[in-house]
Amino acid sequence: MGKIITIGREFGSGGREVGKRLSDELGIAYYDNEIITEIAKRTELAEGYVQHVMENGPTALMPITIGRTFYMGADPVMEQNNAIYREQSLLVQELAENSDCVIVGRSADYILRDKKPLRLFIYADMESRMERCRKRAPEQEHFTDKELRRHIQDVDKRRSKYYQFFTGQTWGEKLNYDLCINTSGANIEDLVKVIAKLVK
Amino acid sequence: MGKIITIGREFGSGGREVGKRLSDELGIAYYDNEIITEIAKRTELAEGYVQHVMENGPTALMPITIGRTFYMGADPVMEQNNAIYREQSLLVQELAENSDCVIVGRSADYILRDKKPLRLFIYADMESRMERCRKRAPEQEHFTDKELRRHIQDVDKRRSKYYQFFTGQTWGEKLNYDLCINTSGANIEDLVKVIAKLVK
Repeated sequence: MGKIITIGREFGSGGREVGKRLSDELGIAYYDNEIITEIAKRTELAEGYVQHVMENGPTALMPITIGRTFYMGADPVMEQNNAIYREQSLLVQELAENSDCVIVGRSADYILRDKKPLRLFIYADMESRMERCRKRAPEQEHFTDKELRRHIQDVDKRRSKYYQFFTGQTWGEKLNYDLCINTSGANIEDLVKVIAKLVK
Repeated sequence: MGKIITIGREFGSGGREVGKRLSDELGIAYYDNEIITEIAKRTELAEGYVQHVMENGPTALMPITIGRTFYMGADPVMEQNNAIYREQSLLVQELAENSDCVIVGRSADYILRDKKPLRLFIYADMESRMERCRKRAPEQEHFTDKELRRHIQDVDKRRSKYYQFFTGQTWGEKLNYDLCINTSGANIEDLVKVIAKLVK
C-alpha cells in the first residue's frame, strides 16, 4: 500500500490532530493550510479570500478580487471558486505525486481517487466536539453552549456543501472512506499508532 | 480496554469473517449463531423459529409456537419476539460477563453499552458484497445479479428494522460505532491484525 492518507473530518473531532500525529508516526509530509497558501499564490487571489471560499463553500458571495491576470467570466465569483478548486486539485495531485503524505480536508479523498489513498473520516459526538473546541479556542471566544453547537453545525454544513458541490458525493458517507473513526472518548495518540500500521 | 468486541455488519461485507479472525487473533470467544441456539433452549421455542424472527425482524408473522410453559399475551407473536429479545439481551450480557469475546450482530453494541465494548461496523460497496456472496453461496443458489442485489438489500433492511425496533437507534449510523470499516477490496486478514492491536 502507498503512503497517501486523506482525512475528512467533522469540525471539532480531532481530525487535524489525527493527521498531524499520523504524519509524525509515519515520517511523511502533512498538508493542510499550507495548501491554501500555495493555491493563493497560483491563482493570484488574496490568501484570505481563498481561505474564505474554502471554509464557506462555493456559493460564498464575497468577490474581493485581487488577481490581475485572472480571467473573469460571466459569473466572476463562481469562476473564482472553480479556479480555486482546479488549482487545489492540481496541487493536491502534485503533492501526492512528489512524496508520501497526509492531507487533511480539501476533498483529497476524491481528488486522489486514482491513487487509492487510505481514506479516513474522523467524527465524534457533539459533546466531545464541543469539549475539544472549548480547549483549543482562543481566550476571546466566549460562545455559549448553544452558540458553539450552532457554530460546529455551520462549519460542517459548509464543508458538506463544498464537498458535495465539487465531488458529487455525500460528505461523511461511509462508502466514500476506508475507515471511519469515532474519537469520542478515544485516546488519539494510541489510536494513531494502530492506524499507522495499516500503511506501514 | 476490556476485550469485548461487538460487530455490526452489512450482509456480504465479511463481518463474520472479521469477527472470527479477530477472536482467533486475540484468543477470545466468538459468538454468533451459538447465541440463537442457546436462546431457543431458554425460551422453549423452536430454534428455527427463533432464527426466523432474528433474521426477519420483530414484525414477522409466523406464529409457530412450540413453547409449553411460555406465557401468551394479547399479541402472541409480539410477545414471543419480545421474549426472544429479552433472553438474547440477558444471554449476551452473561456471555460478556463470563469472558472476553467477539459478538457478531444481535444488537450487542447496544445491549453491552455499559461495558464500553469496541464497537465495529463492517460495510462494503455492493459489488464487493455480491462477489463475496457468490463465493460463499451454496451450489443450489442461482440468483441473477438483480436477484442477488435485491436479496442483499432485503437482509439489510430486516437487520436495520430489527436493530431500530429494539435499540431505538439507527443501524449503521457512524455515531453508534467506534470504528466503521470498509472491506471493499481490503485484505481482511491484514486488517484484522491491525484492529486486534486496538484491544491488545
